[in-house]
Amino acid sequence: MSRSIWSGLDIKAPKELPIGVFDSGVGGLTIVKEMLNILPKESIIYLGDTARVPYGGKSCETVLRFTKEAVDFFITKGVKLLLIACNTSSSLALPYLGEDYDLAMLGVVDAGAEEAVKVSRVKRIGVIGTKATIASGIYERKIKELDSKIEVFSSSCPLFVPLVEEGWAEDAICYRIAERYLKELKNKKIDTLILGCTHYPLMKKIIQYGIGESVALIDSAKLFVKQVRRLLSNCDKLSAGVNPSYEFYVTDEANQFSQMSRLFLGSNLAQAQRVELKEHKNVSNFNKV
Amino acid sequence: MSRSIWSGLDIKAPKELPIGVFDSGVGGLTIVKEMLNILPKESIIYLGDTARVPYGGKSCETVLRFTKEAVDFFITKGVKLLLIACNTSSSLALPYLGEDYDLAMLGVVDAGAEEAVKVSRVKRIGVIGTKATIASGIYERKIKELDSKIEVFSSSCPLFVPLVEEGWAEDAICYRIAERYLKELKNKKIDTLILGCTHYPLMKKIIQYGIGESVALIDSAKLFVKQVRRLLSNCDKLSAGVNPSYEFYVTDEANQFSQMSRLFLGSNLAQAQRVELKEHKNVSNFNKV
Repeated sequence: MSRSIWSGLDIKAPKELPIGVFDSGVGGLTIVKEMLNILPKESIIYLGDTARVPYGGKSCETVLRFTKEAVDFFITKGVKLLLIACNTSSSLALPYLGEDYDLAMLGVVDAGAEEAVKVSRVKRIGVIGTKATIASGIYERKIKELDSKIEVFSSSCPLFVPLVEEGWAEDAICYRIAERYLKELKNKKIDTLILGCTHYPLMKKIIQYGIGESVALIDSAKLFVKQVRRLLSNCDKLSAGVNPSYEFYVTDEANQFSQMSRLFLGSNLAQAQRVELKEHKNVSNFNKV
Repeated sequence: MSRSIWSGLDIKAPKELPIGVFDSGVGGLTIVKEMLNILPKESIIYLGDTARVPYGGKSCETVLRFTKEAVDFFITKGVKLLLIACNTSSSLALPYLGEDYDLAMLGVVDAGAEEAVKVSRVKRIGVIGTKATIASGIYERKIKELDSKIEVFSSSCPLFVPLVEEGWAEDAICYRIAERYLKELKNKKIDTLILGCTHYPLMKKIIQYGIGESVALIDSAKLFVKQVRRLLSNCDKLSAGVNPSYEFYVTDEANQFSQMSRLFLGSNLAQAQRVELKEHKNVSNFNKV
């Protein structure tokens, strides 16, 4: 493969700084979970925009505005690298962020697209995600950049996130909904399916059932974090710290987040803190009243 | 009945001013639909906070903050009366708004509670709503204020809103979900069920099936608007206008809203305009970074 997610990515900040992880809510903790295993020496600052979650049905302009406010937060905090864990932000906002900021940023979308291209034998790849992610067409573009011969088929699955958050990820009703959402994709003879949303790995079993046992599911969290480790190693920016610190920030009430976090992290986390994000300047081009 | 939602409510503003309708998103258009029939001479300013929707899983503090920003918007616009169409805002924010503002405000919760008390013969009332509305306990408090002997049973139905927005309000899967959510309520021998969310009237058929045919469903939109008409009439604040105007504002992209609006309004509406709400002062008591 000729291209890579980190070609040209330059990390200027000191290696001792934490890694930032941004998500629209709690789902990005799947990335944090992998980081605790794969990058155990790294300090982490997590931000979940729980007051405005979900992003998945919102417009490009709004997701970009919210994401810029989050990036400003991480710049204030000081991180060496920012991981955009939210697929919707990675799809709609990250492509427009690069030039405005002097901060290294990576999104989950590249990792998922790269892995799918590696895995697919028949060159037919499926993608599922939120309405906004699918409408952006970003997975298709990324995959075609890597291999223009690959055919990409996509489908949005808006109910999967509320189903997971309701704790019904393995429920019989969820099977019926997965069948419905995946029916068309199943007819496309794909051999690889990208789980293009942080919540979907939690209902892997049902998605596998819906799409068929022979289709490989691409869960980008683990391989994203592995790629991050390789990148940091190549740049000599891996932390040598022995006492990594973990800070969790949310924009809505902190206790709700801590409770929900067990679903994604599989364990309790240190108490989250509530913050209010400052408005990003020069981003609104509509009336303010 | 000794108490009423408008006891003590004083409308000081001129009768020619429009009526404001606030909702977290598109659901409040059910109220607008009734207003077009019941109050055809009134001008309307609608605001849907579509950039931050839904409110139903968010904390009291956050819903209060967002609602205050919306109220500030309506004060800038100039309305004679503000209707809080969103059950979550009515439940979590409205009780704390009165003292801060010199603007007459009414929420849907009062109308639903009053009607249920009138309708119930066995004095056992059920309430369904978002997690936040149900957790607030407001319907129970309002009902008990009106008749302390009534027993109230409640249940949150978080998947109903995304199901309606997915267009699955009359789907077989939706029947299964309604059965599940309403099973416990069904055993409580209620004779009246309050639909405590703007979206629920769109799945009335399924809710009726889930709770049983003998239970009366309270859809507050129509009676809320009837109460508003009576209130305006009593205060001599009904508009005499012959050319009422309608303005629709949203905080996210306007086209998405216009498309979704057909589901609730049953017809096309004038193009919505996008606005950004200003931060309400003196409401944050947590760190700003």
